[in-house]
Amino acid sequence: MNTHDLIRELRENAATKIVLLVADGLGGLPLTPGGKTELESANTPNLDELARIGTCGLSTPVLPGITPGSGPGHLGLFGYDPLEYRIGRGILEALGINFPVTGRDVCIRGNFCTLGADGKITDRRAGRPTTERCKEIVNKLRTIQVSGAEVFVEPVKEHRFVLVFRGDGLGDAVNDTDPQAVGVAPLKAEGADPASQKTAAIVNEFIAKANEVLKADAPTNGATLRGFAKQPAIPTMHDVYGLKSAAIAVYPMYKGLARLVGMDILDAGDTLDTQAERLKAAWNDYDFFFLHYKYTDSTGEDGNFAEKVKKIEAFDAVIPKVRALKPDVLIVTGDHSTPSKMKSHSWHPVPTVIAGDLARPDGFSKFGEGQCRTGGLGQFPAKHLMLWAMAHAGRLGKYGA
Amino acid sequence: MNTHDLIRELRENAATKIVLLVADGLGGLPLTPGGKTELESANTPNLDELARIGTCGLSTPVLPGITPGSGPGHLGLFGYDPLEYRIGRGILEALGINFPVTGRDVCIRGNFCTLGADGKITDRRAGRPTTERCKEIVNKLRTIQVSGAEVFVEPVKEHRFVLVFRGDGLGDAVNDTDPQAVGVAPLKAEGADPASQKTAAIVNEFIAKANEVLKADAPTNGATLRGFAKQPAIPTMHDVYGLKSAAIAVYPMYKGLARLVGMDILDAGDTLDTQAERLKAAWNDYDFFFLHYKYTDSTGEDGNFAEKVKKIEAFDAVIPKVRALKPDVLIVTGDHSTPSKMKSHSWHPVPTVIAGDLARPDGFSKFGEGQCRTGGLGQFPAKHLMLWAMAHAGRLGKYGA
Repeated sequence: MNTHDLIRELRENAATKIVLLVADGLGGLPLTPGGKTELESANTPNLDELARIGTCGLSTPVLPGITPGSGPGHLGLFGYDPLEYRIGRGILEALGINFPVTGRDVCIRGNFCTLGADGKITDRRAGRPTTERCKEIVNKLRTIQVSGAEVFVEPVKEHRFVLVFRGDGLGDAVNDTDPQAVGVAPLKAEGADPASQKTAAIVNEFIAKANEVLKADAPTNGATLRGFAKQPAIPTMHDVYGLKSAAIAVYPMYKGLARLVGMDILDAGDTLDTQAERLKAAWNDYDFFFLHYKYTDSTGEDGNFAEKVKKIEAFDAVIPKVRALKPDVLIVTGDHSTPSKMKSHSWHPVPTVIAGDLARPDGFSKFGEGQCRTGGLGQFPAKHLMLWAMAHAGRLGKYGA
Repeated sequence: MNTHDLIRELRENAATKIVLLVADGLGGLPLTPGGKTELESANTPNLDELARIGTCGLSTPVLPGITPGSGPGHLGLFGYDPLEYRIGRGILEALGINFPVTGRDVCIRGNFCTLGADGKITDRRAGRPTTERCKEIVNKLRTIQVSGAEVFVEPVKEHRFVLVFRGDGLGDAVNDTDPQAVGVAPLKAEGADPASQKTAAIVNEFIAKANEVLKADAPTNGATLRGFAKQPAIPTMHDVYGLKSAAIAVYPMYKGLARLVGMDILDAGDTLDTQAERLKAAWNDYDFFFLHYKYTDSTGEDGNFAEKVKKIEAFDAVIPKVRALKPDVLIVTGDHSTPSKMKSHSWHPVPTVIAGDLARPDGFSKFGEGQCRTGGLGQFPAKHLMLWAMAHAGRLGKYGA
């Protein structure tokens, strides 16, 4: 039986509140055997207290050994099977800049590049233009029209932009035109099926016109495209759980992911403190809050073990502000591991704790990978986490008589 | 989504090597509560070191409570769902004597029996003939020709032989002709579908001719057949993982199972030492090596606890030779448990460790069932082991953006 259908059948209303705190890339590795992970090295009195009163475990984002991107990592935490709902890069980028995606859109991540006189790429990032310059170039591209689709061009940051074609019968099975190399020309777009061939023809028309429009604008005189994607048909959090849900995230990508599953996006400010203030201000308006913290991931990606430890400690310090609101269920987890040792996302399972009046307490003295390994949640697929959230919140009735 | 398709999508090339060491029937039981298992009783400094630096867990070969034969046990370790890919008895028997099975073959286990003048069985094992006698009788059967198929008859041991019909459109849904009783005649073969009816007709023709050829050879004057089986359609290790794979196994059955998934079969000699030498000699030629060690199972089957302990210690002693080659990923596990206490295969989950630079270390002081129970791999289905092998070897890219 489909888990979402089961939840729809069993769910009950309750005046309870669930908070999901996601420290991106939380899990890690020791630098050497016998050492501690970043989380185990950090001074985290507030997380440790949750590990004492709550139930801990290790979350597997997708499957053993599978390293998730941010999309599948978060979908799993929201209770959606990341192997069933696949979100293309272009959609993520569009959601991340607040672009109102529709079901008729093909979304694409674009990069400005520098083309030589022979049409070959000499710089894949166009000399890293300023974001101001990015906006100027985007404005020029907005003059382009193509046959068979509306065109939207949106600036992102530096050399990055988002391109959206809106029309009927457009497919997204189109190759990246980015050759991921210099000294070669951008690739032609080709579609793998008739609907995608229609998209590819539009893309090639657009690129030809863009090259003409930008020909005097070196080093930002070309563009490469990748991650062609349509929006998946995905039920909202309200559809599935009956939860009125809000996201308090600083970075666009995570706002976009939350919007995809129907959460309201609240103004989060720039820091954990402004996020916590926003949480408090919106407390009476929602049943479910998703707070996203980015820097545990970005320091891991930088390979900076000591800095990741500090960011974990900063994250720990916000916990009392959240607990002061007396959530019925408080979950702390990550969307995946990002070990500093690897400077990348990884497949290693993610430390997780669920605290609340109905949690069976593990009584641990420390919140860390080693303790979570033997916790009461066991090792579990991330997509099951929301079942516990609903249960601990008194929002799931009995199955069967 | 099919896991093999996911692996095909995400896999990446890397110059890394994976070694899978299988100690057959590794898991065990203490003889009395409070006692130690065979593995826990053994002096295994090298396995213990792996448990310190690597990640441990317990592997469930098929499903909880399900005791696997060698076929499903190994298929799981190779990453094939043993409930999806079923290997019939006849195929296993053929693989076990190194018969080069093809996709056009129906393989059958045969027993010589003694028939009375009335055609009824008087001895189901034909008075246990010598293996020499078995070969003589097999040679007589090799003179038989049937319409619609090539016939291969191969001696095994004492009253046992393997029969193979090779032809087009032969099915394997044919009943055993062995009535499992004396005082009755062997059963007629019948097919459950048209292709199997074709096989059954050939079988009945063969048996009629065999009875004629052997009529003066009592007590080996008849034959019963069982375990009709074709080779399952199974992708190779190279198809699924992109790994060039080799098996270094002493016993034919395990060579056969490895050949079934497309591994090259290397000359292993007769001992762990010759196997280790072969591993070293072939090191540059393959990405993946499967080494099989039989005696942890056979001593368990004998019910000889002390001898199984010794065989585990002999297995432990080969680990340094393998580690000296610096595999990127080293896995030690078993295909199932064989507790001496039970003198048989069992369902108990199997101690497993994966070691490598990217393993999250459990820091255990000992490799044993009790420690593995709380290890970082958790309790996992054997079919997932290869996902970790690929990830730890840097051979799986990120899933989703």
